[in-house]
Amino acid sequence: MLYLIGLGIHDEGDVSIKAIETLKKVNVVYAELYTSFFNGDLSVIEKWAGKKINVLGRYDLEEDIDGNVLSNPHKDVALLVCGDPLIATTHADVILRARKKGVEVKIIHSSSIYSAVAETGLQIYKFGKTTTLPFPQGDYFPTSPYDVIKNNHDLGLHSLVLLDVKSEETRFMTVNEGLRLLLRMEDEKKKRLIVDDLSLVGIARLGGDSLIRVGTLEELLDLDFGRPPHSLVVPGELHFTEKDMLDMFRLD
Amino acid sequence: MLYLIGLGIHDEGDVSIKAIETLKKVNVVYAELYTSFFNGDLSVIEKWAGKKINVLGRYDLEEDIDGNVLSNPHKDVALLVCGDPLIATTHADVILRARKKGVEVKIIHSSSIYSAVAETGLQIYKFGKTTTLPFPQGDYFPTSPYDVIKNNHDLGLHSLVLLDVKSEETRFMTVNEGLRLLLRMEDEKKKRLIVDDLSLVGIARLGGDSLIRVGTLEELLDLDFGRPPHSLVVPGELHFTEKDMLDMFRLD
Repeated sequence: MLYLIGLGIHDEGDVSIKAIETLKKVNVVYAELYTSFFNGDLSVIEKWAGKKINVLGRYDLEEDIDGNVLSNPHKDVALLVCGDPLIATTHADVILRARKKGVEVKIIHSSSIYSAVAETGLQIYKFGKTTTLPFPQGDYFPTSPYDVIKNNHDLGLHSLVLLDVKSEETRFMTVNEGLRLLLRMEDEKKKRLIVDDLSLVGIARLGGDSLIRVGTLEELLDLDFGRPPHSLVVPGELHFTEKDMLDMFRLD
Repeated sequence: MLYLIGLGIHDEGDVSIKAIETLKKVNVVYAELYTSFFNGDLSVIEKWAGKKINVLGRYDLEEDIDGNVLSNPHKDVALLVCGDPLIATTHADVILRARKKGVEVKIIHSSSIYSAVAETGLQIYKFGKTTTLPFPQGDYFPTSPYDVIKNNHDLGLHSLVLLDVKSEETRFMTVNEGLRLLLRMEDEKKKRLIVDDLSLVGIARLGGDSLIRVGTLEELLDLDFGRPPHSLVVPGELHFTEKDMLDMFRLD
């Protein structure tokens, strides 16, 4: 059996009781931290589990999974991943490969930005499609996130905008970098979406020492949100309760 | 301080280590179970926390919150809620009322259907707006869920369709009831969305003894999904990995 276990949104304290109980009984524990940012301490989880955690890199999981996680179909293996498992598409692939080898998979869920974003006070069922801002690389500068946000905005829906994480290079996109990328997209697209007085929500370390700030693009552009991970929300139409909640986080 | 603590998606094992640590140190613990369905055993959490949990009804929380959760601003109080806190709009209201009394609020996140739905293999960032099918009451039969699903579908996006929960009346909408309501909406709207060969995903007890079944509307209409809670997904356009994942759950 392969257990795909969520580490939760922020640190080691976000794993569930069920996760710890499972870690105690499996034969081997792996962790994958490269698709996301983990603010916690794996050695604490090792103590709770009573066993060592083997941290995998991108190559281990995407090229050589038969050499580690799936090396013995008769053992009980746990794979720890940040947030809720299966949010990263890599993990769906792990399941499909396990299936092919006849290994059963069980998911142990945990907290994730996808529901935790409601901490901003924006109602979760009023979010449209989510998008991610990738770091530009050379000539690679996709503007599809702009279209996703614009489309949601036209429908009155909120957009959760995830910011790129390159854990292996310890590069984590900040709110400020994200806003500058959106401005660059506006320059290309010119649909008057990303304007100076657009109200935005900048988010850092949700579920930890959460920092949520609401302001115009201009106000947030140089605001320091501190340590990663960061993300953004572009709000759509607001219900009055949402407005009251956002006001709690508004800059003076 | 008021701690809003998520119970997680299925049972008591889904609460986090952080949640238990917090419950141990607060003065009073309340739980609100009426907006959702809890498959767990609160008495186990009482043992872990070393204190009694006071279960609140709708009146207690929506009319008389000053008489319980907010009765003493100088005490540390925890309020347990199903899933991730703030998914139900009621809890945003609790925060606003706490604020007015000068009570600080801290959120402890947990797993939720909003991210756990990725267990179907459908990619989470390809979901559009979520909708809920309410139980019809007399002449009250809103068809707005149909419009939400239609709109998502036209954009190629998946729709998470939550099914009504009336815990106080122990009524929990089944996949089958949900599908019949969608058929009734099709009868009114006639936009050829809910057709016999539409591929659908029926979900029960996600994060517990999860049952996920993929089939046509016709195939799922009378399929028994067992105990609550249930939900539905109407898939949009499928990436090949999504197709492969859905195939794992397809009826023969």
